[in-house]
Amino acid sequence: MSEKSIIEALQWRYATKKFDPSKKLNENQVSDLIEAVRLSATSYGLQAIKTVLVNDAKKREELVACSFNQQQIKDASHLLVLCREKELKLEHVQGYMNDISETRGVALESLEGFQNMIVNSILTKDVEDQEEWMDKQVYIALGQLLTTCAAMEIDSCPMEGFLPKEYDRVLGLSELNLKAVLVVPVGYRVADDAYAKNKKVRRSREKFVVEI
Amino acid sequence: MSEKSIIEALQWRYATKKFDPSKKLNENQVSDLIEAVRLSATSYGLQAIKTVLVNDAKKREELVACSFNQQQIKDASHLLVLCREKELKLEHVQGYMNDISETRGVALESLEGFQNMIVNSILTKDVEDQEEWMDKQVYIALGQLLTTCAAMEIDSCPMEGFLPKEYDRVLGLSELNLKAVLVVPVGYRVADDAYAKNKKVRRSREKFVVEI
Repeated sequence: MSEKSIIEALQWRYATKKFDPSKKLNENQVSDLIEAVRLSATSYGLQAIKTVLVNDAKKREELVACSFNQQQIKDASHLLVLCREKELKLEHVQGYMNDISETRGVALESLEGFQNMIVNSILTKDVEDQEEWMDKQVYIALGQLLTTCAAMEIDSCPMEGFLPKEYDRVLGLSELNLKAVLVVPVGYRVADDAYAKNKKVRRSREKFVVEI
Repeated sequence: MSEKSIIEALQWRYATKKFDPSKKLNENQVSDLIEAVRLSATSYGLQAIKTVLVNDAKKREELVACSFNQQQIKDASHLLVLCREKELKLEHVQGYMNDISETRGVALESLEGFQNMIVNSILTKDVEDQEEWMDKQVYIALGQLLTTCAAMEIDSCPMEGFLPKEYDRVLGLSELNLKAVLVVPVGYRVADDAYAKNKKVRRSREKFVVEI
């Protein structure tokens, strides 16, 4: 992978407004995109996030109305809903310690200090701050996902504009202890998506970087 | 760029704890990393974010103490501080409209509706919500930066653990209307960073993905 190509990929990327419903990603591609989210960095590695892949066509139709009528929700090849834990529980932290113990072959007892640090710094926050903290982790995953899509020449559209409560209702997220944070349709643009032709607008380097 | 390679790059990535102070990125590499942040998706494309590149060795020494003594701050080849606007101002939105107008050759007047939408949805939020909203955009940029580093085989360490007020003081960020949100030392790991040998711990696919 050359240096140039990842930057070129990021220049090529844009928030796709019109997906071609006939062009589908294959299973390996979808699997790789989910893997990119799963491999995302999170604070403490705690991963209080999950990916929901919505395959049910009827539900995708229903979600259009919960997404300010944005057609990408049903037209894109696949629909990813990036979620966080609805409520961050001690069991989640314990599960993480178990995973570390198993993956690295270290004794659970040796992880007590780490567990306590996480519990003291995160679980003692008030609920609103915990939620904000978890939300932010999902935004890291979004950046990782969008960049991975671009590297794989897959189109995507990051969306904050949807009704999380309606998503919860349609997808039954509360029962899964999840809350929808970001929605990302992925697939292929149609040839005539006018937005694809718009030049990318960014602050100039001079205005964007401060050297100290 | 093959599908496989970007996922392999993400598997290779880890939060580098020990950087080799003698191994430096070249100018093009640093420029590309900043470009990855500059090209990051942001809500409405508003880019209420900036990158601070800290070249001053004395200031980097000073920042170690403001970063819970993490040595990566001074040992890494380069130090990026990802910032947001301290206060989101109408002029920022107007500057964005000017950039769109210039880049795409469209009349400013035609952007009035878009400007009003941004003003009504963001500038009317209370200050705390505006700040949280801006912070989240910086987290997208972090995900994009970490993935780009990985694709370029550059090591990085994302950090939330630092004292933003002290960073503001040392770097004079307030006068630039900036606030430090995330810190990312970049460069090359030392051969004996024990953390590099740790197996990556992530929730299993079964626990991470929900198909609906």
